[in-house]
Amino acid sequence: MHRIWVEQLPDSIGSIIAVSGDEAHHALRVKRLGAGDSVELIDGAGMVGQGRIERSEKLGKHEGWGLDVRLETVRREEPIHPRLEVMTSTPKGPAAEWVVDQLAQVGVAMWRPLVCARTEVDPRAAKVERLRRHAREASKQCGRAWVMEVSEPVALDEALRPEPQTAIVLAHATGGPYHATNFATVRLLIGPVGDFTPDEIEMARRAGASIVGFGPLVMRIETAALAASAVVMDRERR
Amino acid sequence: MHRIWVEQLPDSIGSIIAVSGDEAHHALRVKRLGAGDSVELIDGAGMVGQGRIERSEKLGKHEGWGLDVRLETVRREEPIHPRLEVMTSTPKGPAAEWVVDQLAQVGVAMWRPLVCARTEVDPRAAKVERLRRHAREASKQCGRAWVMEVSEPVALDEALRPEPQTAIVLAHATGGPYHATNFATVRLLIGPVGDFTPDEIEMARRAGASIVGFGPLVMRIETAALAASAVVMDRERR
Repeated sequence: MHRIWVEQLPDSIGSIIAVSGDEAHHALRVKRLGAGDSVELIDGAGMVGQGRIERSEKLGKHEGWGLDVRLETVRREEPIHPRLEVMTSTPKGPAAEWVVDQLAQVGVAMWRPLVCARTEVDPRAAKVERLRRHAREASKQCGRAWVMEVSEPVALDEALRPEPQTAIVLAHATGGPYHATNFATVRLLIGPVGDFTPDEIEMARRAGASIVGFGPLVMRIETAALAASAVVMDRERR
Repeated sequence: MHRIWVEQLPDSIGSIIAVSGDEAHHALRVKRLGAGDSVELIDGAGMVGQGRIERSEKLGKHEGWGLDVRLETVRREEPIHPRLEVMTSTPKGPAAEWVVDQLAQVGVAMWRPLVCARTEVDPRAAKVERLRRHAREASKQCGRAWVMEVSEPVALDEALRPEPQTAIVLAHATGGPYHATNFATVRLLIGPVGDFTPDEIEMARRAGASIVGFGPLVMRIETAALAASAVVMDRERR
């Protein structure tokens, strides 16, 4: 069934949801849907509905298309367990989009640029905003009920600050295997191209983070982020 | 230390290894190495040596540069355990190179295009050869002593044929979690964009393959290949 993302999804059956912009254009002009067709509605914050298109119209020369959906069913989906927060140095060029894209597909809850001693790319607000839109698109494509968040850059010392029910894991070649924590949240820290410095590893250890090795070889940021996330999701699976 | 890939590496200390072509050009002209500098030599089949550049010269107008390395130490590295063979439908466009690249970094032994009912891209010999060169380059960059092999396309029924000490695993949303097999070889099968057909899943089950789900969401081929490989490497880790 065609999936439409909406800003807000009321929980009252029978409501009319007005859809415009790209979502309406895509449904009507690309997918060629029309009155009577069933669609799925997702708000990216756990609400998933199903309804039928009642009406569609061209809104005006510059406003594009609009459509009305009558809500037939609605349910609330739990977020994916664990809440996996991945913080990585931002790779150069298109690889930043790959990180966001691939992490969304394995079920990561949030990605955030990590700034450490050897970080080369400290993304500006405009790039973070672009990656946030990219995350929304990627979340849609893999059928998530919860959008993957993209947050502001964070310094390593702040990322290491302990929080309740949160396991903090720093990926490093010297670490042992990953062990399930059963915590609600796992925060995974992936270093820059030149790796974390010895001081940073020591700081992480003192802060109580686990140092974990996720493979036998040197991985690029985007590969390490995905491989480590897949292992954490697998080991924490309920 | 700068790493040079060679065709063959003798196991006798003191031998002179002649290096030409791209490897010599890269060492001399890009990395600006010269007589007296130490380099690492790898043959991509487990032999890793260390030596010193004795001499370098321009070989002629069209032959480029050459250099001689005197071998000082040499050792044999075991292949990574398990031998992970990953067979996937070939994704469209540049994602095929991403698959090869990322799988090399997690330690996969071999990638092979899988041809099943809904496969859209059946790579020709020239593309396989290009991906093989790409795998060699990727293997070099992540410091593997063993090059990741790229083999010819294989049909699903052939990929499912049992072999000694080999666990065959088919990735599918309906499967349960992965359990360590302790087999020497794991063969991982990843379906095409439209997924395996119900008949193919049934054929795999009858052939004795395990059906394993590697995550809560729909993943693209390249993401599924890497996520599943990372989980297998982690679960089979010794």
